[in-house]
Amino acid sequence: MLNKQDAVFMAHALRLAEQALNLTHPNPRVGCVLARDGILVGEGWHQRSGGGPHAEVYALKQAGNAARGATAYVTLEPCSHYGKTPPCADALIAAGVSRVVAAMQDPNPLVAGKGMRKLAQAGIETALGLLGAEAERLNRGYCRRMRSGRPWLFSKIAMSLDGRTALASGESKWISSEASRHDVQRLRASCAAVLTGVDTVLADDPALTVRLPGLLERSRAPDRVVLDTQLRFPVDAQMLKLPGRTLIYTGEQADMSRVRSLEAAGADVVPLPLSGSGRLDLAFVADELGRAGFNEVMIEAGATLNGALLQAGLIDEWVIYQAPCALGDSGRGIFSLPELARMSERPEFKFVDFRFVGPDIRLRLQPEK
Amino acid sequence: MLNKQDAVFMAHALRLAEQALNLTHPNPRVGCVLARDGILVGEGWHQRSGGGPHAEVYALKQAGNAARGATAYVTLEPCSHYGKTPPCADALIAAGVSRVVAAMQDPNPLVAGKGMRKLAQAGIETALGLLGAEAERLNRGYCRRMRSGRPWLFSKIAMSLDGRTALASGESKWISSEASRHDVQRLRASCAAVLTGVDTVLADDPALTVRLPGLLERSRAPDRVVLDTQLRFPVDAQMLKLPGRTLIYTGEQADMSRVRSLEAAGADVVPLPLSGSGRLDLAFVADELGRAGFNEVMIEAGATLNGALLQAGLIDEWVIYQAPCALGDSGRGIFSLPELARMSERPEFKFVDFRFVGPDIRLRLQPEK
Repeated sequence: MLNKQDAVFMAHALRLAEQALNLTHPNPRVGCVLARDGILVGEGWHQRSGGGPHAEVYALKQAGNAARGATAYVTLEPCSHYGKTPPCADALIAAGVSRVVAAMQDPNPLVAGKGMRKLAQAGIETALGLLGAEAERLNRGYCRRMRSGRPWLFSKIAMSLDGRTALASGESKWISSEASRHDVQRLRASCAAVLTGVDTVLADDPALTVRLPGLLERSRAPDRVVLDTQLRFPVDAQMLKLPGRTLIYTGEQADMSRVRSLEAAGADVVPLPLSGSGRLDLAFVADELGRAGFNEVMIEAGATLNGALLQAGLIDEWVIYQAPCALGDSGRGIFSLPELARMSERPEFKFVDFRFVGPDIRLRLQPEK
Repeated sequence: MLNKQDAVFMAHALRLAEQALNLTHPNPRVGCVLARDGILVGEGWHQRSGGGPHAEVYALKQAGNAARGATAYVTLEPCSHYGKTPPCADALIAAGVSRVVAAMQDPNPLVAGKGMRKLAQAGIETALGLLGAEAERLNRGYCRRMRSGRPWLFSKIAMSLDGRTALASGESKWISSEASRHDVQRLRASCAAVLTGVDTVLADDPALTVRLPGLLERSRAPDRVVLDTQLRFPVDAQMLKLPGRTLIYTGEQADMSRVRSLEAAGADVVPLPLSGSGRLDLAFVADELGRAGFNEVMIEAGATLNGALLQAGLIDEWVIYQAPCALGDSGRGIFSLPELARMSERPEFKFVDFRFVGPDIRLRLQPEK
């Protein structure tokens, strides 16, 4: 049985979970609230992966004896297995909580209902699904990875009103406003990794870091993944000197002396199989990103890679900053696609969100199945 | 002195005025409400140009004797001069109204304050400016024409997410949704004229009519203006057989036999001076549209004309339907512009409105001065 008060506490637990930004991966973001007689007695969230305490542990510690007879609100089913930390289901039972409300079942096959069952078997009242859609959105990367083996892949594009990302000369600084660029840093701070193509590295020598005060201290530098079939990555790229790892996904045939010099410069070179066309197999890349434990990966790439990803159907969401300016037909577009013979062959999306960001607009689109 | 009730009656008068759609041009849209002791006793709007009664006349007729001592709310200063109808200021004085509230002064130099002055001199209490911004927007075409000699020129573009209006083959049916195409018909029904280039006529043989039931009966077919320097307009174009005039703006050097055959087919051919580059002088075209008495003109054109209009700074507003699909880099763009050497040379806009229209979005932008 759920009541209105339950939704208030769960909403608070969701808000707590969001604080973790990109610090929990490969774990999910989780928040927990303990309440007794309608009064909050403990709260916490999973703050950091790699053995950091789970949300429930923080909340139980804060509640102390007040946990006995309390209701626990957790944004994800409590774990039932020994990972880097002991099972949270056991901790809740030991603390004497009388009721556990979870927003969603843990899609991790090691849990997948076992946590809730363990609680019920211990005589605790359980409820599942409160604000479930919000909880799913909070961890859409983790959920997707647990279900498909691949991260939530979204591509960020900054373009002019007329769909151009750069002048014919390649100049692209700055199409979008400072407000949009700050917004991009917020997206980065929520991602385990940022992926780009080597052409972008060669052209712009980007940092791909989070530099915004207030976010910088609360997140970690996302790993950088660079697709580079021919291993053209420059050893003096600035990203190699910045916090966070740089992974270079290259072909299996990569020149070993080049691999060694890049690794000496601080990169992790990852050889991957090539597709029939001699380029990196993008579906394999997506699988590899999942194996690396990345939950959400943001792609910041040019028209060639974005066009290939669109055609391969690998992008879960497109996040487009559209600036109110015109660059004209000679500017660079956002999708390189083979020429369409018929209108009916065009890839279709649906708009899922819109907002103004400073003088620009931000569109979010998902593929239309 | 104004009170809250005044704004309610003026809002109603504005709503009445809007009903006229494109039936009043070259006159403005005007609404009038008469109220006495807080009760509406008469209402009307200018329904049709060419000697059709002004809004005040309808409202006074409806009110009859109740007009005596009433307040008249008019969205535009009552006229003081003899045009095709006698001055409304005189009619209001004769009916014995005690107070006149006008949303804005008439920018027509023949009126321009004289109407309000005449009322005041007759001992009527007057107030000016209530909901003035809304009244200005209601007649932005009329206001612009009275002040600059040119109509309110807005360009409508239907494009894909990636800023393409057609496939490389030219196929453009249909990028945007049925909902967007209906919305375009609403725009047409509010315009005195629709302007396009002869290339669009040659490629698509468009009708440019209002076909939407409910709008069709309440508006008139906008005049069609086709820019056609070389007089390539086909005599069998379908628009020549449709309701509404077709004006072909061509060069002064136009071949006279071609002019005669087009006029025999129903077109009005208008010779205009060419610019140094041998093309129609777009600033002169804008002046000519003003001289023709068009208040609002919608442009439905391709990248060449839109690029030239953008460069010439002649467009007051861009109305862009953006469909959630991708056509790719080989598709046709929206603005043909000379290659920009520097980002700082790009034309800039500001977003003034956004809405969802079916599965598409509609953006409205104005030039950033």
